[in-house]
Amino acid sequence: MILLRRELGDVLRDQRQDQGRTLREVSAAAKVSLGYLSEIERGEKEASSELLSSVCTALGIPLSIALSQVSERVAAAEAMTAPLQLPVPRRATPVVSSAA
Amino acid sequence: MILLRRELGDVLRDQRQDQGRTLREVSAAAKVSLGYLSEIERGEKEASSELLSSVCTALGIPLSIALSQVSERVAAAEAMTAPLQLPVPRRATPVVSSAA
Repeated sequence: MILLRRELGDVLRDQRQDQGRTLREVSAAAKVSLGYLSEIERGEKEASSELLSSVCTALGIPLSIALSQVSERVAAAEAMTAPLQLPVPRRATPVVSSAA
Repeated sequence: MILLRRELGDVLRDQRQDQGRTLREVSAAAKVSLGYLSEIERGEKEASSELLSSVCTALGIPLSIALSQVSERVAAAEAMTAPLQLPVPRRATPVVSSAA
């Protein structure tokens, strides 16, 4: 099962690391505890909507952009877990020869 | 503050109503209580990642599509709440007449 909190955690951590910021810096800016933010990033806790907004504000990214990135990650995960389409040999259609 | 749970609730309700299905039908298919699904749709409760996956499966839509729609709704809400850009009259540049 693809879980929103895991993909969301990855997006938030990637954003923070891309900015070269520490958990301590972002948790202070977002006014959340370092331990809680760490659990969110690891996909272990569900982020409340308020906390998610605060973290996005602290990271300087619109919530819509974060969600768009999450959607792309989820789509990639869905493609990976989709049932494999095996090539099924088509039954040969018998050639009906018309009487000439 | 734009809250994920409100936009998510609207997306899930719109999907259900577009399919002409009742809360009872979808909650039964998703194996969640009718009251809980109703609160999710109204944006009053945070949906856990597991519940969100179940509801999307019950609605027959990939989680990525639901999240993409949520992202679009959030982007529209962000555009509505962005600080209004008032036209600021530009200070007229004094014309310096060169001594001919």
